[in-house]
Amino acid sequence: MPDDPRLAPVLDRIDADLSDALGRLKELLRIPSISTDPAYADDCDTAADWLTADLNSIGFDATKRDTPGHPMVVGHAPGDGPHLMFYGHYDVQPVDPLDLWDRDPFDPEIQDTPKGRVIRARGASDDKGQLMTFVEACRAWKSTHGTLPARLSIFFEGEEESGSPSLIPFLQDNADELRADMALICDTGLFDDQTPAITTMLRGLLGEEVTITGPDKDLHSGMYGGPAMNPIRVLARIVAALHDDDGRITVPGFYDGVPEIPAEQLKQWEALGFDEAAFLGDVGLSVPAGESGRSVLEMIWSRPTCEINGITGGYTGRGFKTVLPSQAHAKISFRLVGDQDPNEIRKSFRQMVRDMLPADCEVTFSGHGTSPASTMATTNPMFEAARQALSDEWPNPAAFIGSGGSIPVAGYFRDYLGTDAMLIGFGRDDDAIHSPNEKYDVESFHKGMRSWARILSRLDD
Amino acid sequence: MPDDPRLAPVLDRIDADLSDALGRLKELLRIPSISTDPAYADDCDTAADWLTADLNSIGFDATKRDTPGHPMVVGHAPGDGPHLMFYGHYDVQPVDPLDLWDRDPFDPEIQDTPKGRVIRARGASDDKGQLMTFVEACRAWKSTHGTLPARLSIFFEGEEESGSPSLIPFLQDNADELRADMALICDTGLFDDQTPAITTMLRGLLGEEVTITGPDKDLHSGMYGGPAMNPIRVLARIVAALHDDDGRITVPGFYDGVPEIPAEQLKQWEALGFDEAAFLGDVGLSVPAGESGRSVLEMIWSRPTCEINGITGGYTGRGFKTVLPSQAHAKISFRLVGDQDPNEIRKSFRQMVRDMLPADCEVTFSGHGTSPASTMATTNPMFEAARQALSDEWPNPAAFIGSGGSIPVAGYFRDYLGTDAMLIGFGRDDDAIHSPNEKYDVESFHKGMRSWARILSRLDD
Repeated sequence: MPDDPRLAPVLDRIDADLSDALGRLKELLRIPSISTDPAYADDCDTAADWLTADLNSIGFDATKRDTPGHPMVVGHAPGDGPHLMFYGHYDVQPVDPLDLWDRDPFDPEIQDTPKGRVIRARGASDDKGQLMTFVEACRAWKSTHGTLPARLSIFFEGEEESGSPSLIPFLQDNADELRADMALICDTGLFDDQTPAITTMLRGLLGEEVTITGPDKDLHSGMYGGPAMNPIRVLARIVAALHDDDGRITVPGFYDGVPEIPAEQLKQWEALGFDEAAFLGDVGLSVPAGESGRSVLEMIWSRPTCEINGITGGYTGRGFKTVLPSQAHAKISFRLVGDQDPNEIRKSFRQMVRDMLPADCEVTFSGHGTSPASTMATTNPMFEAARQALSDEWPNPAAFIGSGGSIPVAGYFRDYLGTDAMLIGFGRDDDAIHSPNEKYDVESFHKGMRSWARILSRLDD
Repeated sequence: MPDDPRLAPVLDRIDADLSDALGRLKELLRIPSISTDPAYADDCDTAADWLTADLNSIGFDATKRDTPGHPMVVGHAPGDGPHLMFYGHYDVQPVDPLDLWDRDPFDPEIQDTPKGRVIRARGASDDKGQLMTFVEACRAWKSTHGTLPARLSIFFEGEEESGSPSLIPFLQDNADELRADMALICDTGLFDDQTPAITTMLRGLLGEEVTITGPDKDLHSGMYGGPAMNPIRVLARIVAALHDDDGRITVPGFYDGVPEIPAEQLKQWEALGFDEAAFLGDVGLSVPAGESGRSVLEMIWSRPTCEINGITGGYTGRGFKTVLPSQAHAKISFRLVGDQDPNEIRKSFRQMVRDMLPADCEVTFSGHGTSPASTMATTNPMFEAARQALSDEWPNPAAFIGSGGSIPVAGYFRDYLGTDAMLIGFGRDDDAIHSPNEKYDVESFHKGMRSWARILSRLDD
């Protein structure tokens, strides 16, 4: 593809404007838009106003849109070529424990660190710094050329960190307005400092809460220990049976629909030079615990899992109490890949549990969120175009990667708008999102803006 | 044995004095001597004063004895024959939840119920009503004959419901004064309404708290699910492995020192006509869950157990959180019988857990109370004498029974005084001790007094 002559001056403009762009990001970071805490509702509103005004200042027709929760911000800019819809969220996580922060989380500061310059504040990486990379790319393009390079919509949410209660109704009510040829979501990370990434596989999620009841009341283990069945013992047997000795999940039919990753893709992943020892060592581990014969990247990106996220039963306070409890509970989640059917797996899991129940014990289930896995349509040429654009900006070529987590918004865009998504972001593993002393690298911010300019240039036809 | 001519007038006296005896019990029950709550410390003191004065009024030389906690009451009466030391406790459990009581827990009332007359109040059964059966038997004997029928000591504790922190030091400091030929402990129950019992086997107890650590911090199960070992999964495998399919405990060497109960004793237990279905049905169960091939009474009285008293790990609040936790904990206790060695079992259990740990996981243990099982020296003729005395009073002959629970005071008397104990009490399963609307049957109280008079008559040589 020949170089786009419009691009170089935009990149120059971004470089020249970096200091002012950081100033604008600081303004946004000073607004404590914590969505989960009603005490900060006005601040969420203020952040939405700030973004609406900023979008209007660079050629978008933007409005703040009320919801039963915090407002959305939607802006449109006319243009030729494909309709691209950019998503980010302006709300942030709570800041407690506050005493672990080195400074006020809402007084952002540029700091020099051994790994380079960072901007430190709550939301610097998740997601204010990330969403501003796109806004600043648009600003530079507009100020350089007087127009934007595509038909663009922008969609900012203010409830991402508190479960997005208003998102699906809003998508349903505004589907015609928001539907686009491609959604761009900036809420993910680089593969590593040198290697940008487009996330093309997202694991799905299935949550189940299991309660086993044995005796109909808590008993004294002296009086009843022996003859009375202990529900913790029953639950432990069930939990222990969920994996076999090779780390495979034993729920009947669980692996139906799990694809083998093509050799070509695996080769690309291998070429990434992922440091398994460092990844595990960071959390005090050294031996991969998943299915034997799989690499760590395969385990996270392409293999389904079963995790026990919580278990409780009997006396759990300080000291000892010889209770034989009536109930025991577990929260169990499955990460899903490929075409695994969450509803079939839920059914099969529940049947397996029922089949393991001894006489006299009962089980109740409570289902939590299900979402199937998403595999992006990477055959759409926009993916390769974006990959080329990212590769032009960063030292290493961009990679198509998977994500172990579930990013529901991508699935919602597909389900409620019929719009596929590209997940491109510039966060780093050490950004401390959701934690004290969150930061975003100035390099992520700077090269992020330049990346979007390059992507817009490439997607413009 | 020929009838003791002294007995009949004492029994008559008890019958005639029942109403006044109930009045005295009510006085004691009105004192809210809750030992665990510092707000009631003065009331504990008042109860000790009341008992001291009452003992002095019937020929004991009784004093209130200070401890770092609530006071003890010790009284002595000279006499011929064996030295008998009677133990009871004047403190009571807290009363919450108060709204489940039908009346003020410290305003005792005699009530007619379909099962007979009861006295209802906190402590009516545990243990004020029980300890007063002995005091009243002594009162009747003294008022009938002018003397007491044996060399008697009385020892009342005020901290039994709050862990007896002062008991062992007090026994150590006053061993010479308290040592006796036999201790009589009145804090247990009848076998059933018709059948009195002497508890001759007490299970021991061993508590272990286990903490498994996997990753060195809580992780996100999207990011790390698969490659990172989940400590709940490890703990569940360990807990599930503690019992085999026949309900036997798998800790190596666990059954060393577990005696088979002699056929003769088993036959006596069978003859008791214990209603397994009713016992299990009371708590919503129908199938004995212990070792296959054992009766429920054997399971409770003569077989060791392993119970999971508590388990916790990960997120246990409402809703769902996809955490992969760093740690999981379990509280595990073993009930011991015969000559099982708690220290050996602790060692073997810990080794078994360590042997099951996968790479990267660590375990820490915290040991809780250990006590070996106690088997009373029933060859001492006092046991048979007391059994005869009880059989004379009640419709069915008295039984030597076991107790699934651990009653530490009996072991302390043996360990610190060298004194064996007979556990004889008149509580019933439906007394609701430790619960709202506690009661004691007037028949338990009345026949309890008569039982002690008969026992004193028989032990008097």
